[in-house]
Amino acid sequence: MPPLLTFLNHCVFEATLLTRVSFPPPQVDATTKANSGHPGAPMGLAPTAHVLFNKFMNFNPKNPDWVNRDRFVLSNGHGCMLQYALLHLFGYPVSLDDLKNFRQVDSITPGHPEAHDTPGIEVTTGPLGQGFSNAVGLAIAQAHTAAVFNKPGFNLIDNYTYCIFGDGCAMEGIASEAASTAGHLQLGNLICLYDDNHISIDGDTNVAFTEDVLKRFEAYGWHTLTVGDGNHDLPGIEAAIQKAKEVKDKPSVIKVTTIIGFGSKLQGTGGVHGNPLKADDGKNVKSLFGFDPEQSFVVPQQVYDLYHKKAAEGAAKEQEWNALLQQYASKYPAEHADFTRRLSGKLPEGWEKALPRYSPSDAAVASRKLSESVLEKIHNIIPELLSGSADLTGSNNTRWKEAVDFQPPSTGLGEWSGRYIRYGVREHAMAGIMNGLAAYGTVIPAGGTFLNFVSYAAGAVRLSALSQVRAIYIATHDSIGLGEDGPTHQPIETLAHFRALPNMMVWRPADGNETSAAYYSALTSRHTPSILALTRQNLPQLEASSIEKAIRGGYVVLDAANANLTIVSSGSEVSLCIDAAKYLKEKHNVVARVVSIPCFEVFDTQDKDYRLSVIPDGIPSLSVEVMSTLGWERYSHEQFGLNRFGASGPYKEVYKKFDFTPEGISKRAIATVDFYKGVPVRSPLNRAFQQII
Amino acid sequence: MPPLLTFLNHCVFEATLLTRVSFPPPQVDATTKANSGHPGAPMGLAPTAHVLFNKFMNFNPKNPDWVNRDRFVLSNGHGCMLQYALLHLFGYPVSLDDLKNFRQVDSITPGHPEAHDTPGIEVTTGPLGQGFSNAVGLAIAQAHTAAVFNKPGFNLIDNYTYCIFGDGCAMEGIASEAASTAGHLQLGNLICLYDDNHISIDGDTNVAFTEDVLKRFEAYGWHTLTVGDGNHDLPGIEAAIQKAKEVKDKPSVIKVTTIIGFGSKLQGTGGVHGNPLKADDGKNVKSLFGFDPEQSFVVPQQVYDLYHKKAAEGAAKEQEWNALLQQYASKYPAEHADFTRRLSGKLPEGWEKALPRYSPSDAAVASRKLSESVLEKIHNIIPELLSGSADLTGSNNTRWKEAVDFQPPSTGLGEWSGRYIRYGVREHAMAGIMNGLAAYGTVIPAGGTFLNFVSYAAGAVRLSALSQVRAIYIATHDSIGLGEDGPTHQPIETLAHFRALPNMMVWRPADGNETSAAYYSALTSRHTPSILALTRQNLPQLEASSIEKAIRGGYVVLDAANANLTIVSSGSEVSLCIDAAKYLKEKHNVVARVVSIPCFEVFDTQDKDYRLSVIPDGIPSLSVEVMSTLGWERYSHEQFGLNRFGASGPYKEVYKKFDFTPEGISKRAIATVDFYKGVPVRSPLNRAFQQII
Repeated sequence: MPPLLTFLNHCVFEATLLTRVSFPPPQVDATTKANSGHPGAPMGLAPTAHVLFNKFMNFNPKNPDWVNRDRFVLSNGHGCMLQYALLHLFGYPVSLDDLKNFRQVDSITPGHPEAHDTPGIEVTTGPLGQGFSNAVGLAIAQAHTAAVFNKPGFNLIDNYTYCIFGDGCAMEGIASEAASTAGHLQLGNLICLYDDNHISIDGDTNVAFTEDVLKRFEAYGWHTLTVGDGNHDLPGIEAAIQKAKEVKDKPSVIKVTTIIGFGSKLQGTGGVHGNPLKADDGKNVKSLFGFDPEQSFVVPQQVYDLYHKKAAEGAAKEQEWNALLQQYASKYPAEHADFTRRLSGKLPEGWEKALPRYSPSDAAVASRKLSESVLEKIHNIIPELLSGSADLTGSNNTRWKEAVDFQPPSTGLGEWSGRYIRYGVREHAMAGIMNGLAAYGTVIPAGGTFLNFVSYAAGAVRLSALSQVRAIYIATHDSIGLGEDGPTHQPIETLAHFRALPNMMVWRPADGNETSAAYYSALTSRHTPSILALTRQNLPQLEASSIEKAIRGGYVVLDAANANLTIVSSGSEVSLCIDAAKYLKEKHNVVARVVSIPCFEVFDTQDKDYRLSVIPDGIPSLSVEVMSTLGWERYSHEQFGLNRFGASGPYKEVYKKFDFTPEGISKRAIATVDFYKGVPVRSPLNRAFQQII
Repeated sequence: MPPLLTFLNHCVFEATLLTRVSFPPPQVDATTKANSGHPGAPMGLAPTAHVLFNKFMNFNPKNPDWVNRDRFVLSNGHGCMLQYALLHLFGYPVSLDDLKNFRQVDSITPGHPEAHDTPGIEVTTGPLGQGFSNAVGLAIAQAHTAAVFNKPGFNLIDNYTYCIFGDGCAMEGIASEAASTAGHLQLGNLICLYDDNHISIDGDTNVAFTEDVLKRFEAYGWHTLTVGDGNHDLPGIEAAIQKAKEVKDKPSVIKVTTIIGFGSKLQGTGGVHGNPLKADDGKNVKSLFGFDPEQSFVVPQQVYDLYHKKAAEGAAKEQEWNALLQQYASKYPAEHADFTRRLSGKLPEGWEKALPRYSPSDAAVASRKLSESVLEKIHNIIPELLSGSADLTGSNNTRWKEAVDFQPPSTGLGEWSGRYIRYGVREHAMAGIMNGLAAYGTVIPAGGTFLNFVSYAAGAVRLSALSQVRAIYIATHDSIGLGEDGPTHQPIETLAHFRALPNMMVWRPADGNETSAAYYSALTSRHTPSILALTRQNLPQLEASSIEKAIRGGYVVLDAANANLTIVSSGSEVSLCIDAAKYLKEKHNVVARVVSIPCFEVFDTQDKDYRLSVIPDGIPSLSVEVMSTLGWERYSHEQFGLNRFGASGPYKEVYKKFDFTPEGISKRAIATVDFYKGVPVRSPLNRAFQQII
């Protein structure tokens, strides 16, 4: 049995014991029991993970939230049984029964790791490339938090971020973007281990992936290392990680060449990537590693002892750290107060008083500028807010005047304590990095791009929602109102897309007060991300708007007795609808109420009486929004929108082309009133049963 | 004026004249007139484009569709005035008036180049990184078409693909993915020119982008070259392109260092990137390049003469080629017939007879397997069909048994004539490459991934729709029905997203006949892409389904006299709804009709009488689909769906958890019937006015 011999020859006994003895059985058993899952990566990565967790990582399983813990991200999240097994062995609240419930409904061991489900899982991974970008975000957050809070003699924050990624992640564009960003930012606190096992679902990676990965990372400015035999060379893995830690001005990537499914009869093939081992192969693995092949889910006590010893060391480290924090509290009470407040997730008392308020006599302003005004007012009050843009700073208006860039000080372009991130033209990595930033616990990320290009980031935005982080997408140029850039840049489907995404608040404010309300809601929703859809063009300040009304998600902006219909709208079309209401009254003696719904998701959470007071029974309603009508059927009987691509031209001309004028709206309003004449009308909010949400 | 002197010193007179004299004025004038647009890139790139188009490219402005033309892609599409100016000078049907209408409504010169709008524009670009991936697709299509049709003495297809891209494209993940793919595929027919001008919207690229781009491309396996002074060194540009053409086994990238907005007072700064030149600066540029600063939109006759001479050479080349094609026709009539048929966009006569048909006694089969059966049946009949997958071949079932991979023959893994593309884990590049493949004119691309990860490709999928190409996305594992992989992989918002996208057909077939119908529709829709959402789990063959019914997009699968309600559904839930109808009748004496709507977009195009026969007036309707309900309000009064994330577990358990069982559906059906009791009910298809589509 040559692999076993080599293994024995090269490994430290203790490590051998653990990687051979403990990891394979739980993960082999669990994937076999579920008849589903990916045993290959966990088995190939067991030695690497063993060395990393036991020799380097600082963490306390009794307090998975300790802020200065080292962070671990398994970017190839399909290998999560590796993580679950580790969590179990170290004494996190993940039991053998939890492992047995792998991939079962309502277990804490789902098919891919989910941060809000399982203690000790930092970020939700599985969709390839995401974890890698999250790790970059975690490392940025560490560098920033250290720069803000550390003081001479108080190295409060000095954790590392470790990330394992595989060939799949290496192929994904989001990881390329994030790696280029991390290289630029010289993130010496980030150490990534590339599981070079040459296998992906299609088999040997040589069918599609023959690039020189390390050379590419060198081009990005990374420090690169290799471990030729990740199956046996545990000292080599240890030495490489040690060297990586010593390089402080570059992120490090260690290529660890492994055999996928190490120990299985199918090791080194695609057959062990995504399918559980056959029963006889599972027995074979157990025998090979010195186990009783007939027993399942058995971990020897000496394994627990060793892992628990490491866990106890972590607990002691946290205790030391807590003592340091206490000293810090007395020496730097203001910083300490800020630090602990941030960790609590609460914003500074009374911060909301800084939100700008507007009255109708104030000038018409584009909501992207209104957003900038909010940032100008609150950035000093909410120091944990980190803004940024995917290379559209001047267009997104995401940067307050006095902002300092987050940059390596050596570049002369900024500071680690800087709060403005230049993401480059990398929307997807921006969102993935924001998820990592938010997961760290001491910062709130906001990032800008055009609304249309939030779609480039859809994979990561989805994970903002699923992993319940407070991330704020500042999405400007939100419609055909961007004008000349034309159809390639004019969102049509985008709002429908994100309105359909669970746990995502899509805000489309109509004026200054609504923009403030959007920020209020986004910043106070600790477990829900937000997209703020903002205009390029100027918007008048509405008569009836207020922050208080708008934070209900929907409200009446123009009321009228004996109305013939309700017009519901959002953002830039609300003032147009108010004009249309005037036109309808003057020219056609039709009385229209106008409702603004800046946020579907928030409006839906209001009590039914309130919602029915906004869109009442008895009269029909018409929605007006210059994009896909999909979804507006929830709030209206008839929809006026744009179920085609836009046009390139000055925005007023484009609005006219598609009939979005007081006249054009009135035409549809009259058609609606006529269509419902003599028909008893129920509000679209009246429903037969409750949805599953 | 040193730049001018350097310019004069280094340039061939003719080239100097053209680049100095002709390009800047139209593009300077046009962007100034529109008070919008991006003059910087066109001005900096004029010398490069001049050399490329005049010295290398083969094309005939009188026939922009000549299949063996060299392809040009401006990936930094915001610089489209460069392309429009070139098209005008060469005599394409783009007039000076068209240039004057730059970025005006209904012009053929929109803010970003759109393939279906403007003769001579190959692909729709602007969203960064897309054009680069399209270029890779065009190059693959060329290599494949050449391998299929070229014969000894008949080099029918030997065109090159040239692509200019800027720093923005270089930062985008999609371009990284595509570059890695192109390197792997050794595409020697692809030559990319990297406009290294160090400026993006945020200013100097050193704020975010400090990687070594050429080293990265080397890592991908590209041949790399540099031109140090792209503003003046026209012979250097020429020599580099020449060298690139000589390397046949690698794609080439030439880094051309340029000054953005060359000639402007703001040259080399972000100020000239996205803003038109000020009036005095425009005059300054004209004076600098020897023009009358007071005149606008004036092109000297000698410039036209020179460019038209090149155009005439192109026309002559096409004539030669046509003669060659005629000889080919007589020597290889079958190949010639296939070739010309493909170019016509028509499928082989009677191909649809090969589509599998099913009857209720046939076994239950997953629709991803049904899709595979279609591919098995049609791949020999439709030789232009190129399939592939983003590393999910065995899961997407996209590869027919006898398929040969598209690979460089030297790898031993396939052939240039191979029809199966291994895209790697690169969903976004896959879609961008498919857009390029479809644009070439001789192939129809189909590409697979999980439905959830079509979202990674959203930027490119949007452009499939906007640029009206026949691309087919095979999107398997389409719901919570994928089971154990869990919420990270279970689409909730995805169908709503793409149903809201104009010119996109989203098919979610319920059985074998509907799967065949989906393929029928996708393959015969020459200007509309399709997403086929397919199950992992088995589906029974429906009693009432047929290809003919399903190609109408929606039809009755279970009719009943005196029905109390209509249940509308799609895909895997249709058979569940039929079960629910039986349950309703047996347990509650409620009579339900059941309707399958496999494709909203196609159903919407049916005549109103037909649609109302499917979802009639008089009884309420309930939709059932295990994902976001957003959009189903168009076809139903009440919606049963999943407006939250899914769960990891065996799929039947997951369905049960969320109440998607005959009992669960019945509960909602009864609530719906009760809610509408005594209320006159209009079909949701009855609308007050026509939507803008």
